[in-house]
Amino acid sequence: MTTQELLDQIRHKRSFLCVGLDVDLRKIPGHLLEEEDPIFAFNKAIIDATHHVAVAYKPNIAFYEAYGIKGWEALRKTIDYLNKNHPDIFTIADAKRGDIGNTSAMYARAFFEDLGFDSVTVAPYMGKDSVEPFLEFEDKHTILLALTSNQGAFDFQTKDSEGRELYKRVLETSREWKNSKNLMYVAGATKAEYLTDIRKIIPDSFLLVPGVGAQGGSLEDVCKYGMTKDIGLLVNSARGIIYASNGKDFASAAREEAEKLQAGMNAIMRQNI
Amino acid sequence: MTTQELLDQIRHKRSFLCVGLDVDLRKIPGHLLEEEDPIFAFNKAIIDATHHVAVAYKPNIAFYEAYGIKGWEALRKTIDYLNKNHPDIFTIADAKRGDIGNTSAMYARAFFEDLGFDSVTVAPYMGKDSVEPFLEFEDKHTILLALTSNQGAFDFQTKDSEGRELYKRVLETSREWKNSKNLMYVAGATKAEYLTDIRKIIPDSFLLVPGVGAQGGSLEDVCKYGMTKDIGLLVNSARGIIYASNGKDFASAAREEAEKLQAGMNAIMRQNI
Repeated sequence: MTTQELLDQIRHKRSFLCVGLDVDLRKIPGHLLEEEDPIFAFNKAIIDATHHVAVAYKPNIAFYEAYGIKGWEALRKTIDYLNKNHPDIFTIADAKRGDIGNTSAMYARAFFEDLGFDSVTVAPYMGKDSVEPFLEFEDKHTILLALTSNQGAFDFQTKDSEGRELYKRVLETSREWKNSKNLMYVAGATKAEYLTDIRKIIPDSFLLVPGVGAQGGSLEDVCKYGMTKDIGLLVNSARGIIYASNGKDFASAAREEAEKLQAGMNAIMRQNI
Repeated sequence: MTTQELLDQIRHKRSFLCVGLDVDLRKIPGHLLEEEDPIFAFNKAIIDATHHVAVAYKPNIAFYEAYGIKGWEALRKTIDYLNKNHPDIFTIADAKRGDIGNTSAMYARAFFEDLGFDSVTVAPYMGKDSVEPFLEFEDKHTILLALTSNQGAFDFQTKDSEGRELYKRVLETSREWKNSKNLMYVAGATKAEYLTDIRKIIPDSFLLVPGVGAQGGSLEDVCKYGMTKDIGLLVNSARGIIYASNGKDFASAAREEAEKLQAGMNAIMRQNI
């Protein structure tokens, strides 16, 4: 998917909502456990209930990997269902991969070609040659971790003995890499005030913003500090939507929460764009 | 596996060789492609040919993930084969994972409990709360990326605007984390001269050292700068062993290369220990 197509969808839906499909079998409604593939059954119901207001879906791969081969089967069914029924929706494999060059190329093929995701999250620790293999793919996007939403972000990403902070060096350095037009960045909503500094370095890049909702980040702050004239944001919510209810009404409860977030986004877009 | 058991094995085998099981179907002998599970058939033959001189096996998970569900099945068969036939051998899931706390916990369960690996490699970028869930597991080991063997290591790991380098901060900071006794570290053989500085910070921890062989690192240099009185090293070789031949003699060629490395290790152990 091109960035322009993503942007068109955002304008059309008046939404920049990404729904995180972080499926934990201990948290989904009990009646689904009787299904042949409870994870896929859950995802399908969530997608059916929210696709009119979601512009992206982001399965966190850990949740699938934890269930072994059954988990991977559920992931494949989920991405196939999205690509078949909602080809206009942006898909993110939240995998946080990154390895030496020839190995990163294997990961890139796995997520972009074999599974058919539009994008994948990648960790920057191993540098340029660990990320460039992902950037080679036309109309695929590499979402680099810059400033994450967790407490541990303060251990290495922001601290520096003196001078510049690591997340800023990641932003600056990665802009020089080959095919860097295919880069987006993770910037956590729990650190919204940092977005001003981030925008000074990457004024136009799309940001994937986790941490709104369960982790405590505010949609208003994220937009205030991070929004560009072309939106430039994908705001992720997972637990707040998919576990809004753990009864038989889970899908309609998820729809309600997603629609609430979209309404907030629509209001902000009206004011700013 | 306890660290003591790993050490006993090293002393018994006079070897600290880790064999990297990075299986690429484009590189394995053609006749294996007729097998029902070519990846497992290849791994089994390599293990059968090298287990007398290898103290650890390290499948890089990317190579399995790239083949989707078939890849995961081959990975499971490989680890099951190792755990059943060679329970004394240390196993490393080279996954380079790391995510926010509850998600890292999912990865930890996947590799330690579901698959049954002794250890997993983890990226430090997201800090303490992304690594501690791995450290909770008794007698399991978390191998944190410190200084990797690739060129991109110089992008963020070693550079610092001023003052300390990032890989040193990772070493220092991680020592303070809960259950840090379960930490080992990745330190690339292509940067052997750095091992002196690394040993100043972590004098006793085990180091997993990739980059000997195909990537150009020298066994002698690694031992000169990195060896402790309890060895403290696992030196990985993948391509140099497993692709020593791509004919029907691939297993005996792998044995020969592994034995050569072990002979070098034995000689060094004789001199130093």
